Amino acid sequence: MFTLHHRLQADTIEIAQLSLSDALLMNDSSFPWLILVPMREGVREIHDLSVDDRAVLMDEIAVASKTVQKLFGADKINIGALGNIVPQLHVHVIGRFKTDRAWPGPVWGAGAAVPYSQEELDRTLALLRKALKEEFPF
Amino acid sequence: MFTLHHRLQADTIEIAQLSLSDALLMNDSSFPWLILVPMREGVREIHDLSVDDRAVLMDEIAVASKTVQKLFGADKINIGALGNIVPQLHVHVIGRFKTDRAWPGPVWGAGAAVPYSQEELDRTLALLRKALKEEFPF
Repeated sequence: MFTLHHRLQADTIEIAQLSLSDALLMNDSSFPWLILVPMREGVREIHDLSVDDRAVLMDEIAVASKTVQKLFGADKINIGALGNIVPQLHVHVIGRFKTDRAWPGPVWGAGAAVPYSQEELDRTLALLRKALKEEFPF
Repeated sequence: MFTLHHRLQADTIEIAQLSLSDALLMNDSSFPWLILVPMREGVREIHDLSVDDRAVLMDEIAVASKTVQKLFGADKINIGALGNIVPQLHVHVIGRFKTDRAWPGPVWGAGAAVPYSQEELDRTLALLRKALKEEFPF
């Protein structure tokens, strides 16, 4: 059984379930911002995952990172597993731009989210689903 | 050939060279803060590493994470690969405490570093070297 933390559920839209992780889109149009949540109950830290799960997570991070860079032309990818507020293990994969509102600082805690319009959301989800499907059949 | 970025060199002390990464200690006694720098020239993003290197990096992250939690009793581990300022790929592994100065925010950009005294530094390096050596013979 796997339950997504209510804070993650409230702030995101599901893109797809990959092999290990539920891939979510943060509802903040300021950044192309994915969150990967390994579908394992009760895991808080990367070192709590099995060796096999960690290897899959690394693959999923790399694919998400490459996808965000390619689709959105990001200047840099930021990857982070923090969990100070939401303890369920989740990995941020964020496309950063030299022109974005938090550059060069981290995005966490840097201002309020700007939710997507329905049209932007549909377009962004479609792009991401197509690109991830090419890498991982799901 | 592998050259450590001058900013990383200035802010850290080397703990040990692991299989893939140069493991550094951030010279900020506010947090037990390790930085892993894959010893590959010109790599900026995790997805630029080969599949084999990524697998080794994940192992090194997991060991660093577990070590920091065990040695320092951290409440949470924060892991991050940002690189907005220093583009050379480097992964932060930071022990966080509910009482630390940045909690629950990220540590990056949250106040000035508090350098170790020589005695604290020697003790911390010895602890980390001993613990990492048990996991990875180097």
